[in-house]
Amino acid sequence: MQRLMTRFLLTLAASLLLAAVAHADDVLATVTSPDRQLTVTLQATGDGRLAYRVDRAGKPVVNASRLGLLLANAHQLDGGFKLVSQQTTDRDDTWEQPWGESRFVRDQHRELLVQLAQPGQGDRRMALRFRVFNDGIGLRYELPEQPQLPAARISDELTEFDIAEPATAWWIPAGEALVLEYVTQRTPLAEVGLANTPLTMRTRSGLHLALHEAALVDYASMWVRKVSGQKLRAQLAPSAIGAAVEKRGAFTTPWRTLRITPSAAALYESHLELNLNEPNQLGDVSWFKPGKFVGVWWEMHLERSTWHSGAKHGATTANAKRHIDFAAQHGFSGVLVEGWNVGWDGNWVGSQSAFDYLKPMPDFDLDNVAAYATAQGVKLVGHHETGGNVARYEQQMAAAYALYAQLGVEVIKSGYVTDTGTAQFASAGGGTHFGFTESQEGVRHMLKAVQDAAKHRLAIDTHEPVKDTGLRRTYPNWVSREGARGQEFNAWGDPINPVGHEVDLVFTRMLSGPMDYTPGIVSLDGARGRQLNSTQAKQLALYVALYSPVAMVPDLIEHYERWPKAFPFIKDVPTDWETTKVIHGEVGELATLARKDRRSDDWYVGAITNGSARRLTLPLTFLDPTRRYRAEISRDGDRADYRDAKRRFDLVVEQRTVRSTDTLPLKLAAGGGQAIRFVALPK
Amino acid sequence: MQRLMTRFLLTLAASLLLAAVAHADDVLATVTSPDRQLTVTLQATGDGRLAYRVDRAGKPVVNASRLGLLLANAHQLDGGFKLVSQQTTDRDDTWEQPWGESRFVRDQHRELLVQLAQPGQGDRRMALRFRVFNDGIGLRYELPEQPQLPAARISDELTEFDIAEPATAWWIPAGEALVLEYVTQRTPLAEVGLANTPLTMRTRSGLHLALHEAALVDYASMWVRKVSGQKLRAQLAPSAIGAAVEKRGAFTTPWRTLRITPSAAALYESHLELNLNEPNQLGDVSWFKPGKFVGVWWEMHLERSTWHSGAKHGATTANAKRHIDFAAQHGFSGVLVEGWNVGWDGNWVGSQSAFDYLKPMPDFDLDNVAAYATAQGVKLVGHHETGGNVARYEQQMAAAYALYAQLGVEVIKSGYVTDTGTAQFASAGGGTHFGFTESQEGVRHMLKAVQDAAKHRLAIDTHEPVKDTGLRRTYPNWVSREGARGQEFNAWGDPINPVGHEVDLVFTRMLSGPMDYTPGIVSLDGARGRQLNSTQAKQLALYVALYSPVAMVPDLIEHYERWPKAFPFIKDVPTDWETTKVIHGEVGELATLARKDRRSDDWYVGAITNGSARRLTLPLTFLDPTRRYRAEISRDGDRADYRDAKRRFDLVVEQRTVRSTDTLPLKLAAGGGQAIRFVALPK
Repeated sequence: MQRLMTRFLLTLAASLLLAAVAHADDVLATVTSPDRQLTVTLQATGDGRLAYRVDRAGKPVVNASRLGLLLANAHQLDGGFKLVSQQTTDRDDTWEQPWGESRFVRDQHRELLVQLAQPGQGDRRMALRFRVFNDGIGLRYELPEQPQLPAARISDELTEFDIAEPATAWWIPAGEALVLEYVTQRTPLAEVGLANTPLTMRTRSGLHLALHEAALVDYASMWVRKVSGQKLRAQLAPSAIGAAVEKRGAFTTPWRTLRITPSAAALYESHLELNLNEPNQLGDVSWFKPGKFVGVWWEMHLERSTWHSGAKHGATTANAKRHIDFAAQHGFSGVLVEGWNVGWDGNWVGSQSAFDYLKPMPDFDLDNVAAYATAQGVKLVGHHETGGNVARYEQQMAAAYALYAQLGVEVIKSGYVTDTGTAQFASAGGGTHFGFTESQEGVRHMLKAVQDAAKHRLAIDTHEPVKDTGLRRTYPNWVSREGARGQEFNAWGDPINPVGHEVDLVFTRMLSGPMDYTPGIVSLDGARGRQLNSTQAKQLALYVALYSPVAMVPDLIEHYERWPKAFPFIKDVPTDWETTKVIHGEVGELATLARKDRRSDDWYVGAITNGSARRLTLPLTFLDPTRRYRAEISRDGDRADYRDAKRRFDLVVEQRTVRSTDTLPLKLAAGGGQAIRFVALPK
Repeated sequence: MQRLMTRFLLTLAASLLLAAVAHADDVLATVTSPDRQLTVTLQATGDGRLAYRVDRAGKPVVNASRLGLLLANAHQLDGGFKLVSQQTTDRDDTWEQPWGESRFVRDQHRELLVQLAQPGQGDRRMALRFRVFNDGIGLRYELPEQPQLPAARISDELTEFDIAEPATAWWIPAGEALVLEYVTQRTPLAEVGLANTPLTMRTRSGLHLALHEAALVDYASMWVRKVSGQKLRAQLAPSAIGAAVEKRGAFTTPWRTLRITPSAAALYESHLELNLNEPNQLGDVSWFKPGKFVGVWWEMHLERSTWHSGAKHGATTANAKRHIDFAAQHGFSGVLVEGWNVGWDGNWVGSQSAFDYLKPMPDFDLDNVAAYATAQGVKLVGHHETGGNVARYEQQMAAAYALYAQLGVEVIKSGYVTDTGTAQFASAGGGTHFGFTESQEGVRHMLKAVQDAAKHRLAIDTHEPVKDTGLRRTYPNWVSREGARGQEFNAWGDPINPVGHEVDLVFTRMLSGPMDYTPGIVSLDGARGRQLNSTQAKQLALYVALYSPVAMVPDLIEHYERWPKAFPFIKDVPTDWETTKVIHGEVGELATLARKDRRSDDWYVGAITNGSARRLTLPLTFLDPTRRYRAEISRDGDRADYRDAKRRFDLVVEQRTVRSTDTLPLKLAAGGGQAIRFVALPK
């Protein structure tokens, strides 16, 4: 049973016009975290330019950093401000997620709302809202409806992040053709160029930071670029049709967020961005059930079959039914079939892309397959690959959703494969144009696809998406996305994913939300002789280490049959959690996560490492001290090693009875992992 | 007497369609420099993506780096190319500048023109043109008129520059509010963020590189951003109204250029960008006479008078005449008067900017002053400050030019002061919008201002300009510009220019073209107690070290009268040269330049240092060996030091008779310099 605790404390500060110009670095307002460790200070420099800084226990975390918006249609929202009023509000309540890494999320913060005016611009108004949590901060700009600015064309955002202490950064480049699908770079923070977010940092004194944004709605995605030293600035994904962001009337920007924690574990466990998102707008979403799905997919990446039509077409009625049988037999709830519809022949990426979202291929009897799935108690996972032709997709989307809803589909995997990072959008006045998928119009489209899907009780798993900024809170049918270099690169990548890639993801990509990484390739081989940088045990551990409410069991059926020892954990592991803890965490090195199943008393642990073998001790204090558990362990054998063609398959499956006062050894091979199911024994 | 030598060698390679796809890194074409030291290789990667690389004496200078253009209105010009034909042309001729650092410029290069087609895009055509000189390379894209691409909306340029050897970089940040007016940063190349050009580099083995562009016409200015490691990519200055670059029909991009030389001296002496510009289109420009000008200017920066009206208005009839008298007395050819026209009262920067380019202030009798100047044999230097309101300026420009032409003005100093890096442009369909001054529309405006001025026989000295890319060759009335942090920052900057700033400029900013730095503040003081980071001797040396055909003598009249020893060199030094040599050069450390006067047999030397005192030896081998010279030396005294309030004025003026076989000691104080006039004695 849950208790919601809500307590609001309103403090209204004096609302006088203060002269914010004339003195260098006047403090306008401050706000601290509930535990008083973090302080955010808003200041005005000599000409009324605004800056904020962040201190922790009296030491600078973020030096005085600029704020402001550059406009194309009016004088910039950048300087000449005066403080009109400030208001502080405390909040401490707990809300419940319909699905997720945790059931309950505590939202404890102090908020500062500052109203500002520009006398030199006819008293034009702007507000800054800061929310300070014990584990980080968020800030955003708010513009009211006002005759002084009926519309805002934002050409550049001036928000800066000047990190005070020398730091190491883990980041991916932005503005690139493959959007978010890049190997994580580890460099000194001063060597960041143009990066996407989350951008994870660790300072010399061990403080862990993650720069990101929350509630990205109807705005360009924020990249960050190095200005000088360790000073970064927001760079909005450009628009092909005008200013980066076009707004009418009142609006708020997304939250610019910075997680600030003393450890990698706390960095991961923070719910900062979720807490900054709007509450659930969809109401009851119990029609969506987290689960696992198999599919006609990996075989195409292995080049054994094709998406396009012909003798090797993968998406045939027979192959789909074979997978439905397999899913039904082993308790997987879904079957994905890619290549089912017309449009895969010829060049399906980019401007020639001509998918038909209603019309199956001749050798795929959609109605028959859907009915067969329903009869087996399995759901078809829909597939809407767009090839980046958003204009065409939007024309057919309503009908395509209606079709899927009628066929009993619950989850749709969508895709925006391009080789340029640009998609094709409809142009006002007819025709189309190419624009960045991360632009305001790309962001709009992807949310619209989710909102429209909700009307049909459809959940969306977006591939080649914009970044996750926590909108799953507001739209809990946005259940997962790709948004990083996934398992598919191990099939055909040049190079494939490096051995530390998944560990890197835990403390970067996975801070933003669920990822459909498609773990569980127990055969450990890609196409044309590629060998995954992974042991078999790590593939199992990934189901716990990389969270997704919908997780694929992607390998070929015959591969799971060939490796029966590796299968039970995959069958057992759930995808919806009561609570999550990070037991061991070191950015770029290792991660051990423990999660409690939401629907039973069982716990699951997944530990993964990079290229270094590890001996760790797993304390079991997270277990219920009143219970005993049967630990079902799938681990690297003593000779396991990802580099050896045989020994990477050295998987040991064993059992032990444990209590919360015990510890377990975690001996991880190079490129290895360990997966443990703790079955709660009857009391 | 000059001899023009022109020799063309045409080589037509086989024009067959080669399969550029299928193999990784196929070499499509190569071209070497005339001395065969530099090689540029064009290659195609697996999917027909294009890359170029540059080697010097067999060692990589630029690793295989990407080429391509991303379009908003069509499939990207990025991959799937096939080679259609290639053609190599040799050139070696010498052309003459009507004014400049040298009279004659040798253009010796080998050109490779590659015609490409994209079969997957209906055989759409694109060409790449490479020109390889002994001291660097240039490359550009060329699109023909073709039904496959009637218009090109360029949203991003994909040209990369992956510098092979670890290097140090000297750079200024781009996309900032003050455009080009920033202190030079010296960092490892890997720590560049978003930079403007020229971007100067020195590799570990001592190779000197400068990345820049030539012939920036009707295109967005190119910034460069770090991608990863030492790989930089072009980033076009964004547009507020559409794609970064909008084109119809056939077009060529600006040249992307890289000077590649073994020394700082050779880096400076290269004429790479000039040689890549189109020849003089204006014909005879002998109406423009290089010279020096005084003015009503520094007194406003010192806050002794104002631009705006009132009791302290600087631009009065009397004050202008006083300066005309001073100019006439000392042989200076021009007088600049700022604040002469209506519009300086109130907020003159940005959207409120309302200059009237025809109407003088009530206390400034324009006609009277102009006539007085003419009678004294001095020309009024016009002043068109726009406050960034380009839309308004363009409305009045024709009439304003006509007025100045009628009044005998020869040179106009224009200005685009903004505090955002954006200017106000007219919008299609009425109204205005703010856009970056470095955007395509900003670039268009600034060239149009110059082209229109030429019709009236007016020369332009642009302040707050776009970068110089050598267009003075094509439009020799574009005589100078600011485009860096100038002397004015020493009046009011926080901070003022650091002691190494001018040395930094020599090997960065000055590679692009003349700068109106306004050297010669012999009083060595700014406003409110600021002391220039300079000795008096350095102020004189700057007239030689920082080239401009129009150079200001900016200090207050009473200051030149107070420091008579510092004045003769300023009076003597010309501003138009026969030839220029760098005698000593070390980026960021020191520079000694020797220049021969175009109108006499005299030579001039200017040596400057940063905060380090130096003892150098000046070999005089540049002098005519058949002549004797009287060396008139203005140097730091033995106790001179820029940090000491008195000793910074320790200036020694002395004479010696010398021949080309002699050497002279150059003892430069910290923050100091030396200026020498070599008067050719009668034979």
